[in-house]
Amino acid sequence: MGIVLGPNQYGKAECRVVRIVRDQPRHELRDVNVSTCLWGDFDAAHVAGDQSRVLPTDTQKNTCYAYAKEHGIDQVEEYALVLGRHFVDDVESVAGARVEVEEYLWDRVVVDGREHDYSWTRRGDAVRTAAVTVIGDAVWVVSGLHDLVLLKSTGSEFAGFLKDQYTTLEETHDRVLATSLTARWRWDGTGHDWGAAYSGIRQILVERFADVHSRALQQTLWEMGRAVLEAYGAVAEIRLSAPNKHHFVYDLARFGLDNPGEVFHADDRPYGLIQAAATRDGGSDPGPAWELSTGFA
Amino acid sequence: MGIVLGPNQYGKAECRVVRIVRDQPRHELRDVNVSTCLWGDFDAAHVAGDQSRVLPTDTQKNTCYAYAKEHGIDQVEEYALVLGRHFVDDVESVAGARVEVEEYLWDRVVVDGREHDYSWTRRGDAVRTAAVTVIGDAVWVVSGLHDLVLLKSTGSEFAGFLKDQYTTLEETHDRVLATSLTARWRWDGTGHDWGAAYSGIRQILVERFADVHSRALQQTLWEMGRAVLEAYGAVAEIRLSAPNKHHFVYDLARFGLDNPGEVFHADDRPYGLIQAAATRDGGSDPGPAWELSTGFA
Amino acid sequence: MGIVLGPNQYGKAECRVVRIVRDQPRHELRDVNVSTCLWGDFDAAHVAGDQSRVLPTDTQKNTCYAYAKEHGIDQVEEYALVLGRHFVDDVESVAGARVEVEEYLWDRVVVDGREHDYSWTRRGDAVRTAAVTVIGDAVWVVSGLHDLVLLKSTGSEFAGFLKDQYTTLEETHDRVLATSLTARWRWDGTGHDWGAAYSGIRQILVERFADVHSRALQQTLWEMGRAVLEAYGAVAEIRLSAPNKHHFVYDLARFGLDNPGEVFHADDRPYGLIQAAATRDGGSDPGPAWELSTGFA
Amino acid sequence: MGIVLGPNQYGKAECRVVRIVRDQPRHELRDVNVSTCLWGDFDAAHVAGDQSRVLPTDTQKNTCYAYAKEHGIDQVEEYALVLGRHFVDDVESVAGARVEVEEYLWDRVVVDGREHDYSWTRRGDAVRTAAVTVIGDAVWVVSGLHDLVLLKSTGSEFAGFLKDQYTTLEETHDRVLATSLTARWRWDGTGHDWGAAYSGIRQILVERFADVHSRALQQTLWEMGRAVLEAYGAVAEIRLSAPNKHHFVYDLARFGLDNPGEVFHADDRPYGLIQAAATRDGGSDPGPAWELSTGFA
Repeated sequence: MGIVLGPNQYGKAECRVVRIVRDQPRHELRDVNVSTCLWGDFDAAHVAGDQSRVLPTDTQKNTCYAYAKEHGIDQVEEYALVLGRHFVDDVESVAGARVEVEEYLWDRVVVDGREHDYSWTRRGDAVRTAAVTVIGDAVWVVSGLHDLVLLKSTGSEFAGFLKDQYTTLEETHDRVLATSLTARWRWDGTGHDWGAAYSGIRQILVERFADVHSRALQQTLWEMGRAVLEAYGAVAEIRLSAPNKHHFVYDLARFGLDNPGEVFHADDRPYGLIQAAATRDGGSDPGPAWELSTGFA
Repeated sequence: MGIVLGPNQYGKAECRVVRIVRDQPRHELRDVNVSTCLWGDFDAAHVAGDQSRVLPTDTQKNTCYAYAKEHGIDQVEEYALVLGRHFVDDVESVAGARVEVEEYLWDRVVVDGREHDYSWTRRGDAVRTAAVTVIGDAVWVVSGLHDLVLLKSTGSEFAGFLKDQYTTLEETHDRVLATSLTARWRWDGTGHDWGAAYSGIRQILVERFADVHSRALQQTLWEMGRAVLEAYGAVAEIRLSAPNKHHFVYDLARFGLDNPGEVFHADDRPYGLIQAAATRDGGSDPGPAWELSTGFA
Repeated sequence: MGIVLGPNQYGKAECRVVRIVRDQPRHELRDVNVSTCLWGDFDAAHVAGDQSRVLPTDTQKNTCYAYAKEHGIDQVEEYALVLGRHFVDDVESVAGARVEVEEYLWDRVVVDGREHDYSWTRRGDAVRTAAVTVIGDAVWVVSGLHDLVLLKSTGSEFAGFLKDQYTTLEETHDRVLATSLTARWRWDGTGHDWGAAYSGIRQILVERFADVHSRALQQTLWEMGRAVLEAYGAVAEIRLSAPNKHHFVYDLARFGLDNPGEVFHADDRPYGLIQAAATRDGGSDPGPAWELSTGFA
Repeated sequence: MGIVLGPNQYGKAECRVVRIVRDQPRHELRDVNVSTCLWGDFDAAHVAGDQSRVLPTDTQKNTCYAYAKEHGIDQVEEYALVLGRHFVDDVESVAGARVEVEEYLWDRVVVDGREHDYSWTRRGDAVRTAAVTVIGDAVWVVSGLHDLVLLKSTGSEFAGFLKDQYTTLEETHDRVLATSLTARWRWDGTGHDWGAAYSGIRQILVERFADVHSRALQQTLWEMGRAVLEAYGAVAEIRLSAPNKHHFVYDLARFGLDNPGEVFHADDRPYGLIQAAATRDGGSDPGPAWELSTGFA
C-alpha cells in the first residue's frame, strides 16, 4: 500500500471585519469574524511544493475585506454566499469552499429616550453564525447561534433513569437546568429572510426552553428543535448542542440551615454534553453541510 | 539585615454562588463569583507551620454559601459587607478582610409579551462588581463594572499629538473609537441605593461615551468620570481603565476601491491602555480601597 | 414530510482525573481530562421524556474515576478502550461510544542531580490525546497531540503562487514559519506500544519540521505525515492541522534602520489554517474514527 | 469639594515582539510580549483634549520594535530598562514609566542528537517576566515568572487549623499539593546576571517545593522565598502568589473500592489563593516597584 495524500483544505481563519454603513446620519454597524476554507486541485502544493495553483490565504483575507465594501454585510448568509461562490467560480483550482461567519451583535445606545446615531454597546447574549458550503453549482446554508446561556430555576426533573453499579445520582423532581446553547439550522435553498428567521428561531428556542416542563435535557432539545421545524418550513434540519451546566444544591444542613433549592454551587467541569437533531422524514440531502473546518483533524 | 516575613494574605477565590429566591411563584436569581482574602496574625502559619490561628479557605467558602442563605444576595455590596464584617469581627486572628464579588446579570425570558416566572437568558454586556475592604471598624466600598464594550463610528479624532523620531501615526479627525470599559467607583460611607446607582452610573458612562466629541480617549474618560461625580455626591472617586481597541481602516485602494471609513480590521494586540480617575479636591481618605488581591505579587 | 428525531448522542465532558501510583516510594502520576459520548436506543428519552434506558452522565463520570482505580491509566489509549468497551458491552441501550482523553505531561523535579520521588513540574509543550470509538465489536483508535508550538527562523519560503486581483502578498524566499500543531494518527488494530509510538511520532514531526526546506506549510505537513507512515506501519492515516502563525517583518526603514529578518510582529488573527492528511492507498476503512463529539452541531 | 483629575497613566499593551539574531548560522530567538505605561504632565490631554504633550501609544509601540533592533533583547530586564529610561529621559512630559515584559521560552529542536541551528519548540512550563519602573533618576527592577505548575503527591498535610461553626474540612496528614506559581523578586540595583539568576531562582523554588515537608502552602511559600533571599544577596524581596489547586480524593467506597490517595478529581474553582513575601529587615525602599498597570482600576 503506497503512501498517498489524503483529504486536505486550507484557508484564512478569523478575519475580524467591521463594516460601517455611513451614507446616512444614522450609521449601521456589522461586526463579524469570517473564515474561509478551500479544497480542490492542490496535490502539487503538498507533494512537490508547487504553489502555482494556490490562492494565498492572504488573498482570501483581502477578498473578505474587499467584499465587505463591494457587497456589504447586510446578512451574514448573503456575505458568505458571495464569498464562497467567488472562490469556486473564479479560481480554477478550487473545487469547493466553506465560509464561516460569526456575527457579534450590538445594541444602539439610547440617550434621553432616543437611539444614538453612531454609538453602540456590544450585546453579549449570543453570537449569530452562518456556514456556507459551495461545491460546483451546489450550495448549503447553515445558520445558527452559540453562547446563548439559559437557566430555569424550576420546571426541570431527572428521574426514572437507568442504574448500574456506578450510579449514585439521586433522582430529583425539581432542579436548576442551565446550558450554553449552540444551535445550527440547515436551510433548503437560499433567498430566505435570514434576519427575521434568526430572530424568530432564537425566540422559539428560548420560549420552548422556558415553557416545556423538562424531564431531561434531551427532551427539552427535541421540543426546541421540533418547534423550529414546525414554524419554518424551509428549515430542513436543526442540530442542538447543550452542555448541562450543573448547579449543585449546597449542603447547608451541616450549618443548621435548610436549603430547599435556594443556594447552589455552579460547577465548571465536568459537564454533561447533550446533542440532538430534529429533521424531516425523507428530507433533503445534507451533503457536507454540517462538516466544520475545525472538526477536520 | 535578617530575612523576615513580608506582606501576606490568603483566601478562597471564585466561589460560584447562585441564589434563587423562590418564596413567590415569580423567582428571583442572583449569580455571583465571590472571593475572600484575609490578613492578620498569621506569622506562625508561615514560619512555624502552625495553623492554629488559620481559618481554612474551605471554611471561608462554606461561609459564602451559608451567608447566601442567611443574608441573601440582594445587592452585592451588602453581601460583601456582611461577609467582610464577619471575618474581621468573629475571627480573632483576622485584622482585615477584602471580599470581591462579580455579578453576572440575567434577563427574564419573555413569552407572548409576558415575563416568565423562572427562566432567564444571561445578559453579556457587562459584569457588575463590588469590592469591600474591612479593617477593624473601618470599611471601604468600591462598586463597579467590567467588560462594557462600547463603539462609536464617528465623533472621535486624534490629532495635534507629540511627535518624535519613532512617530509614524497619521493624524485623524474621524475614526472609530472602541473600548471594553472597566469602571470602579469608591463610595463615601455605606447604606446607599446600590442597585439604582449601578444602573444610573452605567447609563451616564454610556451616554458620555456617545455624546462627548472625543479628542482622545483620555478626554472621554475624564468626561465620563466627571459626570458620575457630578451626579452622585456620595461617590468619592471613580477610576476608569479603557483598552483602546484599534479599528484600522483597511487599504482597499489596492483593489481600486475607496474606503471612506467603511471597512475596518479590528485588531487584537497590541492595544492602547488608557487609565484615569476623577476625584474630589480634599476628599476622603481612600485607604487601601483600591488595592486588589490580584495585584499583590 | 414528518418531523423526526435526527442524530443524537450524549455524555460527560471533561472529567479531570488524576491518578497517583504509590505502591513504591517513587510515585507515578497520570493527569487526564476524559470525555465520554454514547449513542444508541435513546429515542424515548427525547420524544417521550422516558429516561429508563439512559445511563446518567453522572454515572459515566463515576465510571471514569472508578476505572482509574480498577484499570489504571498507564496508557491513555488502553484506558479509553476499556471505558468504551464497557459502555457498549455492559449497557444494553448503548450501540456506540466514543471516549476522548487529553493527557497533560509532567516532568519529574530534579534535586541535586537526582529525580524526585513524588514532585513534578507540568510540561507545557504539547498535550497528548487519544480518541477511541467502539461500535458493537469494532473499534477505532486515534492517537495524537495538540498545542505543539514550532518555529523556524529560516528555511521557509512562499513564492510562485497564484495571483488574482485581490493578491498583494509579496513573494518571499526567507521567512519565519511558526505553527501550533494538532496531529491525529489512526491505528490499524490495537495492542501497540502506545507510549513509545507517541514519543517516536512526536520526534518525527519535530524533525521533519526542522529539516525539510519548506516551500509552503502544505508541503511541510505532507512531509511530516509521510515520514510518520513510513516509520510506523500500523498507522493507517495521519491528519495534521496547522495554523500559520504569521510573523510579519516590522518596517524599521521609517526609523532609518534596516531589518533583514531580525525583528518581527507576531500577529494573533487572522491566521492561515492548513490541514492535510497522509494515508495509504487501499488502506483500512476509517469508519467514524475521525468524527469528534465537538464537531457534531 | 471641586472635581479634579486623579491618578492617570497610559501606554501600549502587549506588543508581540520576536527578535531573531542571525549573524551566525546558529540563530538565537527572543519571543516577548512588552507593555509600556507612562505618567506625567498629561492634565491638558484629559481636561482640555490637548494632545500636544502626549506621545502616542502607536509611537511607544514603534519604539519597542525599533529598540529590539537597536539594543537587542538579550535579557528582558535590560530591554525594559533602556525602554523605560528612554521614555523618561527623552520625552519632556513624561515623569515616570513602567515597562513590563513577558518572555516565552523555547527549546532548540534536537535532530540526531544535535541541536538544530534555527528550529525550536515552545516550552510551556513557565513564563519569565520583568517589570521596570523609572521615575526621574530612580529605577526599580522586578524579575519573575508565572504559570510554573507544581504538584507533589505526598509530603503535604493540613491539620490543627482554626475551626468555627462553618468548618467542615477534615484534617489530613497526606494530601496532594498543587499550584501554578507566580513569583516576583525585586532587585537592589541593576547590572546583575539576570539570566543566570532566573535559572537559579527557578531551581530554588522548585527544589524547596519538592523537599520541604509542607504543613500548609503558607509555610511552603515562606521556605521558598527565604531560600531565594539566602542565596541571592542582591534580591531585596520576593513575593509569591499561589493558587491552591485542589485535588479531592474521589469517593470510590460507594463502588466497593478503596482509595488510599490514588484517584483524585482536579477541581477548577474555587481555589485557595495564598500570597506571601519574604523580605529583609531594614531593607531598601520598594517605592512603586510592585505596582502593576493592571491593578490600577
